Amino acid sequence: MRRFVVIGQKARSSDEFLLDDLPGTSGRLDVLVRCIRAAMLFSHGLRRDVVLYLVLGGGPGAPRALRVSAETARFLRPDERSLAILVKKVLASSADANASGFVEVKPGVALASGGLSDVFADLGPVPKYVLEENAPDIRAPGAKLRSDAAFFLGDHLGFQDEVRAQISAAGANAVSVGPLSLHTEDVITLVSSELDRLEAQTH
Amino acid sequence: MRRFVVIGQKARSSDEFLLDDLPGTSGRLDVLVRCIRAAMLFSHGLRRDVVLYLVLGGGPGAPRALRVSAETARFLRPDERSLAILVKKVLASSADANASGFVEVKPGVALASGGLSDVFADLGPVPKYVLEENAPDIRAPGAKLRSDAAFFLGDHLGFQDEVRAQISAAGANAVSVGPLSLHTEDVITLVSSELDRLEAQTH
Repeated sequence: MRRFVVIGQKARSSDEFLLDDLPGTSGRLDVLVRCIRAAMLFSHGLRRDVVLYLVLGGGPGAPRALRVSAETARFLRPDERSLAILVKKVLASSADANASGFVEVKPGVALASGGLSDVFADLGPVPKYVLEENAPDIRAPGAKLRSDAAFFLGDHLGFQDEVRAQISAAGANAVSVGPLSLHTEDVITLVSSELDRLEAQTH
Repeated sequence: MRRFVVIGQKARSSDEFLLDDLPGTSGRLDVLVRCIRAAMLFSHGLRRDVVLYLVLGGGPGAPRALRVSAETARFLRPDERSLAILVKKVLASSADANASGFVEVKPGVALASGGLSDVFADLGPVPKYVLEENAPDIRAPGAKLRSDAAFFLGDHLGFQDEVRAQISAAGANAVSVGPLSLHTEDVITLVSSELDRLEAQTH
């Protein structure tokens, strides 16, 4: 199972945003929404072996975390608006309010009211990587890439220092996907491609 | 200069589509619109050395081609709706109706009424590649990747036989980006990453 964790510093944790102006009203939740497509979908299909966590650090009620499990998710469409509608519907739920950990709200989509700490608890002791500029190349043999790992990614604002420290404390190895700083969704695409190549070699 | 050519078999060549239902009303122009972001934008910046052609094969008035030149384009935003609004405004123009070749409609964005033939004429004698499943790996030394090349990509429907034949006749070498069939925008991301790595090695 592949796992991606995208941390939205100011991404809205409630459903109070406008579908017609996602970048301007949602703390750039658009960045995270696009990551759903990049992590889950390929040509005419769903990558069944992916779990994606979106950590929402913005607005009243933050932090909150949303988990999408491709294995059981349904009706995931590639366009940004459809995905934003799904996220908006899920965030309208208060099922996580008095719960501990993730609570399924729709098939394959769950919410937690604890943010990153809930993600760590849910992940358990899997190998961890953090995507970072100028870190060792993910293609280098020393990266020892594993497809059952969890990959932590920042949004357009990067990581807050305390968040980066938590990820390090969890034992994550820093890797990079190339010489430029790319959009989060592109980084997911590049990591997914490395994992596809790795799995094609080993199967 | 990097050049990408995305061929939308049924993508709407007019502005008659709904921003609120892009996938359902535009012949899947959403697939092509997302390619603008993938080809042009990286973290907090615009890739100035990219030209993207979208060939629109659907609806009345087809074929038509839209060209985005990052060097002179302005206000390119990453979210799908903003990019669709830009494309809709450009397609409302009839500046290309009685013209030959590409006519600039907005800064850095031009239209042509001839479809793929106008793209070939505009490209001139640059090296050409076509992205295709099961073709030789783009990472193989034999691919002789060049960053001044033009890369041809299909949409979710792939290439029509006659289009594929035209691309072959233009001397394009077939390459692939990995073991799976991916969304067009992800293929652009993967090609861009290879070119970024190539340029980082040679500069």
